[in-house]
Amino acid sequence: MEKMKAAIFVEPGRIVLERKPIPDVGPLDALMRVTTTTICGTDVHILKGEYPVAKGLTVGHEPVGVIEKLGSAVSGYQEGQRVIAGAITPSGHSYACLCGCPSQDGPGTPHGFKAAGGWRFGNTIDGCQAEFVLVPDAMTNLSPIPDDLSDEQVLMCPDIMSTGFSGAERAGIRIGDTVVIFALGPIGLCAAAGARLMGATTIIGVDAIPERLAMARRLGVDQVVNFRETDPASEIMRLTDGRGVDAAIEALGTQVTFEAALRVLRPGGTLSSLGVYSTDLRIPIDAYAAGLGDKTVVSTLCPGGKERMRRLMNVVASGRIDLKPLVTHRFKLDQIEEAYELFSHQRDGVLKVALTP
Amino acid sequence: MEKMKAAIFVEPGRIVLERKPIPDVGPLDALMRVTTTTICGTDVHILKGEYPVAKGLTVGHEPVGVIEKLGSAVSGYQEGQRVIAGAITPSGHSYACLCGCPSQDGPGTPHGFKAAGGWRFGNTIDGCQAEFVLVPDAMTNLSPIPDDLSDEQVLMCPDIMSTGFSGAERAGIRIGDTVVIFALGPIGLCAAAGARLMGATTIIGVDAIPERLAMARRLGVDQVVNFRETDPASEIMRLTDGRGVDAAIEALGTQVTFEAALRVLRPGGTLSSLGVYSTDLRIPIDAYAAGLGDKTVVSTLCPGGKERMRRLMNVVASGRIDLKPLVTHRFKLDQIEEAYELFSHQRDGVLKVALTP
Amino acid sequence: MEKMKAAIFVEPGRIVLERKPIPDVGPLDALMRVTTTTICGTDVHILKGEYPVAKGLTVGHEPVGVIEKLGSAVSGYQEGQRVIAGAITPSGHSYACLCGCPSQDGPGTPHGFKAAGGWRFGNTIDGCQAEFVLVPDAMTNLSPIPDDLSDEQVLMCPDIMSTGFSGAERAGIRIGDTVVIFALGPIGLCAAAGARLMGATTIIGVDAIPERLAMARRLGVDQVVNFRETDPASEIMRLTDGRGVDAAIEALGTQVTFEAALRVLRPGGTLSSLGVYSTDLRIPIDAYAAGLGDKTVVSTLCPGGKERMRRLMNVVASGRIDLKPLVTHRFKLDQIEEAYELFSHQRDGVLKVALTP
Amino acid sequence: MEKMKAAIFVEPGRIVLERKPIPDVGPLDALMRVTTTTICGTDVHILKGEYPVAKGLTVGHEPVGVIEKLGSAVSGYQEGQRVIAGAITPSGHSYACLCGCPSQDGPGTPHGFKAAGGWRFGNTIDGCQAEFVLVPDAMTNLSPIPDDLSDEQVLMCPDIMSTGFSGAERAGIRIGDTVVIFALGPIGLCAAAGARLMGATTIIGVDAIPERLAMARRLGVDQVVNFRETDPASEIMRLTDGRGVDAAIEALGTQVTFEAALRVLRPGGTLSSLGVYSTDLRIPIDAYAAGLGDKTVVSTLCPGGKERMRRLMNVVASGRIDLKPLVTHRFKLDQIEEAYELFSHQRDGVLKVALTP
Repeated sequence: MEKMKAAIFVEPGRIVLERKPIPDVGPLDALMRVTTTTICGTDVHILKGEYPVAKGLTVGHEPVGVIEKLGSAVSGYQEGQRVIAGAITPSGHSYACLCGCPSQDGPGTPHGFKAAGGWRFGNTIDGCQAEFVLVPDAMTNLSPIPDDLSDEQVLMCPDIMSTGFSGAERAGIRIGDTVVIFALGPIGLCAAAGARLMGATTIIGVDAIPERLAMARRLGVDQVVNFRETDPASEIMRLTDGRGVDAAIEALGTQVTFEAALRVLRPGGTLSSLGVYSTDLRIPIDAYAAGLGDKTVVSTLCPGGKERMRRLMNVVASGRIDLKPLVTHRFKLDQIEEAYELFSHQRDGVLKVALTP
Repeated sequence: MEKMKAAIFVEPGRIVLERKPIPDVGPLDALMRVTTTTICGTDVHILKGEYPVAKGLTVGHEPVGVIEKLGSAVSGYQEGQRVIAGAITPSGHSYACLCGCPSQDGPGTPHGFKAAGGWRFGNTIDGCQAEFVLVPDAMTNLSPIPDDLSDEQVLMCPDIMSTGFSGAERAGIRIGDTVVIFALGPIGLCAAAGARLMGATTIIGVDAIPERLAMARRLGVDQVVNFRETDPASEIMRLTDGRGVDAAIEALGTQVTFEAALRVLRPGGTLSSLGVYSTDLRIPIDAYAAGLGDKTVVSTLCPGGKERMRRLMNVVASGRIDLKPLVTHRFKLDQIEEAYELFSHQRDGVLKVALTP
Repeated sequence: MEKMKAAIFVEPGRIVLERKPIPDVGPLDALMRVTTTTICGTDVHILKGEYPVAKGLTVGHEPVGVIEKLGSAVSGYQEGQRVIAGAITPSGHSYACLCGCPSQDGPGTPHGFKAAGGWRFGNTIDGCQAEFVLVPDAMTNLSPIPDDLSDEQVLMCPDIMSTGFSGAERAGIRIGDTVVIFALGPIGLCAAAGARLMGATTIIGVDAIPERLAMARRLGVDQVVNFRETDPASEIMRLTDGRGVDAAIEALGTQVTFEAALRVLRPGGTLSSLGVYSTDLRIPIDAYAAGLGDKTVVSTLCPGGKERMRRLMNVVASGRIDLKPLVTHRFKLDQIEEAYELFSHQRDGVLKVALTP
Repeated sequence: MEKMKAAIFVEPGRIVLERKPIPDVGPLDALMRVTTTTICGTDVHILKGEYPVAKGLTVGHEPVGVIEKLGSAVSGYQEGQRVIAGAITPSGHSYACLCGCPSQDGPGTPHGFKAAGGWRFGNTIDGCQAEFVLVPDAMTNLSPIPDDLSDEQVLMCPDIMSTGFSGAERAGIRIGDTVVIFALGPIGLCAAAGARLMGATTIIGVDAIPERLAMARRLGVDQVVNFRETDPASEIMRLTDGRGVDAAIEALGTQVTFEAALRVLRPGGTLSSLGVYSTDLRIPIDAYAAGLGDKTVVSTLCPGGKERMRRLMNVVASGRIDLKPLVTHRFKLDQIEEAYELFSHQRDGVLKVALTP
């Protein structure tokens, strides 16, 4: 059995590059040779032991590559084709998928639903920080890359563009809206880009890292608030003349940002939550609001599937936004431990890294 | 200046019937002679000092009556006409109203939004537990009663039908959904009726008061769960074969019901919150859900306005549901303190009382 | 190769029962032994040569049966299990499916869309008026029948319930709406039932066949209009005090009903079109409306997939509506030509027939 | 009684500037001194006698000005304030308004609905091609102009931005959509801008006037099709690899453009109709589509109200799009007949004219 290099989770604090067998394709699968991939904040949660995965699992869920081999029941693709797959790989045929909720596809449950069940790469099956990755339900998940787009141009599609944009989409942003984004890491920056794409005309970004505030301005954020210099809630209410924002996007996963987002939301507004929280959340109640003030809280797990990927690659191809500057560092797969070291400590202004074999 | 009887908030623990002047109509107002009204759970919050209103304010926000006098700029109505007005009386012309959020209409704010600002009767202006009530923005709020409907038949429209139904509407219930209602007081029972009207095919109701469980069955709840006899979350997961519910409606306003509602919600489902909470809420976070599991929390304040009232009276007239059994007790306005005594202690199986002059 | 009986389209005017081979299962298919099926109005269009299908094709698209054999890549089912499949059998993995438009799934097109492409049974592949039928993309389409439901109880789910209900769903019917249904055949009756399930409080039905008008009343239609006795448009405007209806459902497929539906629709209302038209349609323009009066026209092809079937069987199980009276006649498969004779001429008050082997 | 200059409709073919009395304000009105206004394609329909208005009526529905006098019941504004009002001036309190359909507000009807009833300026009441205009329901309709915006910058807000954007909004455009706009006059150009603001990534514009095609490219249209040089339907199918477009916006009002729009729409897509048609429309039926292919046709009349205007002025202020180049010609009110001459014959590359006193 042939072997490949793969970054596996050994124990909290240790993700290491090892050799493991190249997997066989089942009838519905495709084997993808990975040409570029990256590291996500969630991988850092896994590294730290904050998000539980099996020991020995290959991590990573953002694959760009080439079809190496197709399962016997897979049609509509050719070996050698350049493709991406989303971080979430829904089956397409579960009750959850058919109900419009593919990210919550629950393979193995009789009723078809499972929280985050659609997220399989680097969570419940081997991921793509490796030379090869097995893509399940290939016909639902493989999306051909247009010829004129490079690997790096589509590297953000599988996760952060999809997740960030969905933060804006689930908030139901409309032309003329005022929107705030809490935390301007890669996901928050993509959420800001998504809000801008949907027609928000005042976009406020909150963070404290100067490089991120600068990148936010570059990607179309209208106002930036440095939370080390000013109280963001007061500042946002000032910027909106006391009205508050139509939508608030939380892109960090902490009580402080969640609570500030709720506070600056106008009555009837929507808080779109993208963060992965590690502790219980508290919703402050204001008696005068007689309830929750018609506010809505929505949450989203990165939408996947080939149609989603097709749309996101269209955005890249259109040139409407340019996310290339998000790739701040490049490594070989062999240097992945070094890449984790840099990325997990957010050194050197890192936003996203590109990993190639 | 002529005087009338009115139930006023004196201090926490005391709502008393006093005489105060019959108000004058401004150009956009109408003076309504109240022929029937009722007491709401929110009035009990006011009585207990849990919801802040000015001392001396007339309480009550569910008026059925007759137009006594119309403001100079009001057209389209006649004096003597039987009408109702919603508990929430939006202006129709604020930014909040024109933005589709009339309950959060903020009179006096430059930007037009204010949490619960559209709720004026018995909150920021004199209410209707009185012989007369001044209806602001009359053309937006007065809704003629069809001839063949009695006062008691439409008495639930201004608040509990509107609020309860909106709990179902905001949950986006679809044909074939499974829905749970936490707490089967008047609002919860109306939410159940609303869920049934919208096509939910499995409706589960949770309460512990036998009369309420029986009334729930009578109004179309399919399964009742007595939380004194069984853990509701486990029981609901059992009833749904581990799938959870598509929508959960919280109709009480406590941490216990809110949390149980979130817990039994399937990934991607919607929690519709109707309760008026008196303490901060906690959202339990499950690391495996990688966020909040695509769940949505929506909240609603009783929708008002004459179009809403027209629709609700259509429901009554159609005979689709029969809410008359909710009126369990009848009092004269002179007996209002006795009515509060009964209602606030939920004695004698009381659901709603009818108050007449 | 074993043979089975199957009703095939020979030429316009002739559908006959013949023997043809029982098909083999591919990896994603299931072979269903048909225990009950029925004839649809669309089959009559095919019989008359008005809807084009290949000669020799087995017709029929409403299968109830038992799993005979599963493809090698199909999991989650057992042979011997009682199941239904929708009239439309989307793949689950096309761009159309993943875009929320499964009925327009276009197998064989590179972009995944094709008008009516998701309708395969008795259209582009052999249908189910036969002893056996091959179900494509079985994991997306097979829906287990609850034990306590009979074949006849679920016989309407694959098509007419799904189509009729979708007419109401796509119209976006809300609690308190006034709705008219043009033509009260099986689809129109199901549309009326769907409108009622969604909370319409005034449902007006238009037809001229006394049995259908009577059945409409039995299924919850509030007002019936016999178009042979009165002009339906004038009558509907009278019944609605000149306001018109919030939603109009066209369930026949003619210029007359389409135009009357548009005419009685209030400004801003929705016309939901279910009919299969055989000639071009004309939209009358009224200069005073300055355009089309904010009206919306939506069209629907029977939604399929196992989640849809699950929901519809839930409706049946809940007892909310009782569609059993729609089965007015029963035949053996051997008598299918006789059944077509009766059904295509709408003799003897026929609504739907049940066909069993 | 003081007099003012006003452009009135005399008879088909004649709109002339005359003197008529400056109107008195009723309690809910405001008198606006017009500082800038413009001519709309609809005014040309009126001029030609194709859209019926009363003889002697002042035409024009796009006012920019200053509050001259407020009605006795109007609060929240000051005389001297710079304001705009939408072309459609809904009351805010009708059933239509409260039902979410303000453009179809029917003053004078008991049920509150009337086709195009919300359009009053220059249709049922005197319009704004005059020195003064009376704004009905002032609190719903007057929207203050931000200090840093000039009259010309906001001149497109009352009608063409609102209408054009609504064409995109009603089409439900999503990030990554492919959209075609038929006819690139002022409305079509605004529809293209709206589609771009909402995230469409491939926008195709169809027209034949070189200046319009050039302006379309400048405003963000990705591909232009000159219908004099190529068959637009074939060309659009080619540009979309046979898939068709997700949304088609018709911005002219002819059978040819309506039919081509339907034809290039992918199954399940939406045709958003903005045109004012002068003859009946025909929908071509394709038997293979088994109905209308899940397609949707939506129509829109320019949304009005102060919240709408506020949002549109936000778009202008944000600099997201620059519509100033649409103002190609400038006239004094005294030259209005000359302006009509130019505009109605579309001479000299005219898109919009600015008229000042």
